[in-house]
Amino acid sequence: MAFLYKADPARGAQWAKLFAQKAPELPFHIWPDLGDPAAIRYLAAWQPPEDPTRTFPNLEIVFSVGAGIDQFDLSGVPDHVPVVRMIEPGIVEGMVEYVTQAVLTIHRDLFDYALQQQQQVWRELPLKPASQRRVGVLGLGVLGTAVLERLRLFGFDCAGWSRSAREIEGVDCYAGEGALDAFLARTDILICLLPLTPATRGLLDAQLFAKLPRGASLIQTGRGPHLNQQDLLAALESGQLQNAILDVTDPEPLPAGHALWTHPRVRITPHIASATRPETAVDVVLENLRRHCAGLPMLGQIDRAQGY
Amino acid sequence: MAFLYKADPARGAQWAKLFAQKAPELPFHIWPDLGDPAAIRYLAAWQPPEDPTRTFPNLEIVFSVGAGIDQFDLSGVPDHVPVVRMIEPGIVEGMVEYVTQAVLTIHRDLFDYALQQQQQVWRELPLKPASQRRVGVLGLGVLGTAVLERLRLFGFDCAGWSRSAREIEGVDCYAGEGALDAFLARTDILICLLPLTPATRGLLDAQLFAKLPRGASLIQTGRGPHLNQQDLLAALESGQLQNAILDVTDPEPLPAGHALWTHPRVRITPHIASATRPETAVDVVLENLRRHCAGLPMLGQIDRAQGY
Repeated sequence: MAFLYKADPARGAQWAKLFAQKAPELPFHIWPDLGDPAAIRYLAAWQPPEDPTRTFPNLEIVFSVGAGIDQFDLSGVPDHVPVVRMIEPGIVEGMVEYVTQAVLTIHRDLFDYALQQQQQVWRELPLKPASQRRVGVLGLGVLGTAVLERLRLFGFDCAGWSRSAREIEGVDCYAGEGALDAFLARTDILICLLPLTPATRGLLDAQLFAKLPRGASLIQTGRGPHLNQQDLLAALESGQLQNAILDVTDPEPLPAGHALWTHPRVRITPHIASATRPETAVDVVLENLRRHCAGLPMLGQIDRAQGY
Repeated sequence: MAFLYKADPARGAQWAKLFAQKAPELPFHIWPDLGDPAAIRYLAAWQPPEDPTRTFPNLEIVFSVGAGIDQFDLSGVPDHVPVVRMIEPGIVEGMVEYVTQAVLTIHRDLFDYALQQQQQVWRELPLKPASQRRVGVLGLGVLGTAVLERLRLFGFDCAGWSRSAREIEGVDCYAGEGALDAFLARTDILICLLPLTPATRGLLDAQLFAKLPRGASLIQTGRGPHLNQQDLLAALESGQLQNAILDVTDPEPLPAGHALWTHPRVRITPHIASATRPETAVDVVLENLRRHCAGLPMLGQIDRAQGY
């Protein structure tokens, strides 16, 4: 019985050290050093190998090392093998930090002040209270909920939208396709924290932007293919959108020379909003192994039909 | 009996409207429309007129419309006239927003990512957990305390320094001159929220920067004359300091052509971190008038000997 890690090797070395401390009885391998393939019961990967159960006939669980599993080719993983995405405190903390910084950047007009600094202009702009700034989060999973709970403390007028109904204290929750337009119409700062599925691919397009109030801003912390980048550039040109903060693009890396890199109202970061933190991620994986052995459901186990 | 407002006329018009609703019995004048000078009992000003009690022989209180009173020439205000600075929820909320955004900007390496974006480079930098980032606030009044209480929620390692001893839950509080060096030695992100007094003028200089860990960053939300701007530029050049976010400068406006405007690791905003909000400020002033009439101490009344 062994555990196989197949992702960034530097982080893999940190996982190996933590496994040696916390689960010394379980042999730990880092791809491509497999040991005996028949011994591999558990696989943690950013992208699993093709047809993993042919290579690892006794595979019992596939863990994603990321919060999403859209990068997985699930067709190669048979239905009886559970797939578990990564929900751990480090990912949540990083996302709350990133989105809070992004919302405050837009709320406090820091795109405009940066442009004024370039022109060496000292000019105060009107200050809007947070209570008059309508923030809206698309996707109310663990990340979306944690982000809204932090933003509420600043006094923002907070709402969220999800496919199925949710309740979050102090947050106006909209549910289902039919409620999307009403949610967008009241949102000045839109944050995407959706999973990437066939239903959400390309959702952030000209049609959606047109339903936001004129001059709204976008914070894109979902997955690159949620966003139609040409539609974003057009919406920024027309003034329908005012600012965009993008942590994900399509493709990644964003190619040099792409118009998004140089747009004065676009901030780009290289998919760093949050990252799995080995210390806390290994604890969550080990807890899930205990649950699996006890026949309990695992934390973050995905629904193959929904795709998240 | 009348109230006189002497500051930004546009905000004055908002104050007038609020006074008409909330205290219709008290005549409200906006400088230079004084009415009968002998009727003026209360003055709210950014800078009081020279020798105010000669002009207004029945003056009872001077209110500052700002959080500080360093811009006041107190020599013209006799000792029997209380001076009250502005402590109101709008100022606190604005400062908490500004400093949180600034700390997260530095914590999440967004100066570096902005420089990478200019070069169209997509490269992930190592991510430090908030618990390993040591934030320190100089000045533990209403603003410093509110800022630390918000930053704690993000898990930062938080400390504060003040002249006299304070206690804030979850914050390591240092007090007095003798403790300043130890406070600086453990501070990666230094935030200045001190009042401007003879003792704090020029405090942020080369000698102080040298006591911070190499590569520390500065958030300057105090008053311009706290900071020696040439020493800051030298500390950024030598690498002793990594980044600086300045909301105040000396002089203000910062002149076009000043080296701070164009430094890639300096962000400048035009003294906008927080502003008195008429809705809440008028409530605080009216509450203080009630207290004054009842012989109670007023909120924000300054100690003339300390100067804050």
